[in-house]
Amino acid sequence: MKTALIVVDMLNEYDHEDADVLVESVRAALPAMRRLVERARRDETPIVYVNDNNGDWGAGRPELIERAMAGRAGDLVEPIAPADGTWFIAKARHSIFYETQLEYLLREQEIERIVLVGQVTEQCILYSALDAYVRHFAVAVPRDAVAGIHREMADCALRMMERNMRAEVVAADDCEL
Amino acid sequence: MKTALIVVDMLNEYDHEDADVLVESVRAALPAMRRLVERARRDETPIVYVNDNNGDWGAGRPELIERAMAGRAGDLVEPIAPADGTWFIAKARHSIFYETQLEYLLREQEIERIVLVGQVTEQCILYSALDAYVRHFAVAVPRDAVAGIHREMADCALRMMERNMRAEVVAADDCEL
Amino acid sequence: MKTALIVVDMLNEYDHEDADVLVESVRAALPAMRRLVERARRDETPIVYVNDNNGDWGAGRPELIERAMAGRAGDLVEPIAPADGTWFIAKARHSIFYETQLEYLLREQEIERIVLVGQVTEQCILYSALDAYVRHFAVAVPRDAVAGIHREMADCALRMMERNMRAEVVAADDCEL
Amino acid sequence: MKTALIVVDMLNEYDHEDADVLVESVRAALPAMRRLVERARRDETPIVYVNDNNGDWGAGRPELIERAMAGRAGDLVEPIAPADGTWFIAKARHSIFYETQLEYLLREQEIERIVLVGQVTEQCILYSALDAYVRHFAVAVPRDAVAGIHREMADCALRMMERNMRAEVVAADDCEL
Repeated sequence: MKTALIVVDMLNEYDHEDADVLVESVRAALPAMRRLVERARRDETPIVYVNDNNGDWGAGRPELIERAMAGRAGDLVEPIAPADGTWFIAKARHSIFYETQLEYLLREQEIERIVLVGQVTEQCILYSALDAYVRHFAVAVPRDAVAGIHREMADCALRMMERNMRAEVVAADDCEL
Repeated sequence: MKTALIVVDMLNEYDHEDADVLVESVRAALPAMRRLVERARRDETPIVYVNDNNGDWGAGRPELIERAMAGRAGDLVEPIAPADGTWFIAKARHSIFYETQLEYLLREQEIERIVLVGQVTEQCILYSALDAYVRHFAVAVPRDAVAGIHREMADCALRMMERNMRAEVVAADDCEL
Repeated sequence: MKTALIVVDMLNEYDHEDADVLVESVRAALPAMRRLVERARRDETPIVYVNDNNGDWGAGRPELIERAMAGRAGDLVEPIAPADGTWFIAKARHSIFYETQLEYLLREQEIERIVLVGQVTEQCILYSALDAYVRHFAVAVPRDAVAGIHREMADCALRMMERNMRAEVVAADDCEL
Repeated sequence: MKTALIVVDMLNEYDHEDADVLVESVRAALPAMRRLVERARRDETPIVYVNDNNGDWGAGRPELIERAMAGRAGDLVEPIAPADGTWFIAKARHSIFYETQLEYLLREQEIERIVLVGQVTEQCILYSALDAYVRHFAVAVPRDAVAGIHREMADCALRMMERNMRAEVVAADDCEL
């Protein structure tokens, strides 16, 4: 089953409510995310960055990288910032599928399974997993490569994805690409 | 009624079939397009560029500008190329609405009417006018600021927009913004 | 390529503007439509009726049939009215794809090609062909099994479908199912 | 804010996995659902039934009612079965918004807030609340008028809706219509 790695909302200025607790969770998950990105690059698994543009329709990949690097936790951005030419889709709301080009991209590329990494486990990751499931894409969520805000809800979100959306919830290093 | 000016597919390398005849039509329509863009800027009417990315998901506004400038008719690109910070949406198929963020952007901005300029009259312009009409946006098409390939079909497309999609088909200089 | 026959807007009360001229065109196209429906039934080609509900969300197939039969041209409805159990989707706007379940149905059924019959050639048929093309479905339009209002625009619509949407525009009896 | 009451998936044959535990939860929630439906009728608040058709595109409201009444818990169907003329939308997947006419209906009716009742709290109700939130509809979920399968996940789903989707989670009798 052809797979893509999707990196969700890692270009973040961390200036929102709950950013402090999120930063700690991202710091913990970043190494596993990086290993997955490196593995995907090496194996030529497609990688797609999907990132909120905070309603700024004049900002593309370069502007969003620049702002996130200059934000409160640039050290969490630099190691995972997408290189020139990386597939990149802006989103305006939580789900990576809502009113974006992602489904079209995946179908054109004959991708049938997505691996979701990034933030926030109990929000954008959960909602994106759901929208993938509804569209009959297989979903994997490496539990140590997603970052949450609210521990209990994040755990529940992972159980929901596993039980109700048939997601593989696995350790990043065990996750097939 | 709050209006936006939409510039469709003007970042074009003109390397496709029918490009020669299209180039001539674009050359004729470019001055009227420019006057509309300038008027919109001066009046602070929102401007959105929506452009095909030719299936290259790593290309954003800067890359698409660069390629079009280096293409067969860079002189048709430079005068209308969007400045940094211009609202920009990539599309993969003909309609500006199909699996893009445009409808969300328009609703968030409380825009109820769009003025369509660019290319191709009997293809992307027609299809975008239709998708706007279906979504209950008012549509205006300045007939001298859109470029076509097939004269007879372009004329028919304008009549279809006027008659069946209730579009205002007007001269660019008479088009309200 | 797995094909479905789609019957568009044939449950019509014919009480709208332009109904008189449409009625004559439907009368001429009805025999070819019927032959296609009969052929599809015999060959077990999937048939889907997609019909405007005129904004009445309480009306399903039975109510829409009943009203159309009681309308100004019940004789044009009865021969093509869908039997119990026929696949049926309500639409609110012109395109059979806009905010309906149709694309999901087609993908689930692994249908890759649609044959469009019904009305109106230069409106719902054209717009539905376009939305199918954008979604990479193959499209066939039997020119004698679609009904139009405005002769010149209907002819132009058929040329647009053939040239710009790669539709097969053929005689009904030559149309593969 | 104009409100609609949405009744989700109450036409159920209860022949799926987990049906036993769901039946008990539905039995407990049914009286509160009925009070809301009665209140909405009395106050002329719009009511929309959205129900899975289990992939049977030939089944509309009458067929789905008939099957559910003949199913394993017809006594849970009869008290809430929609009368003739009730607004009804078929869905193929979990969310009431996914590839259905619902968003169009709500916008046409200028409805800005939805009250969700029915089943299953931690599945279709959660996903529908999310899709409403993403689309900027206000959402209320009367906690005693929704039925779940997995108690802990249902509780977590209600907290997610309240905290992350800004839903009003209230007692049915306190829920404004």
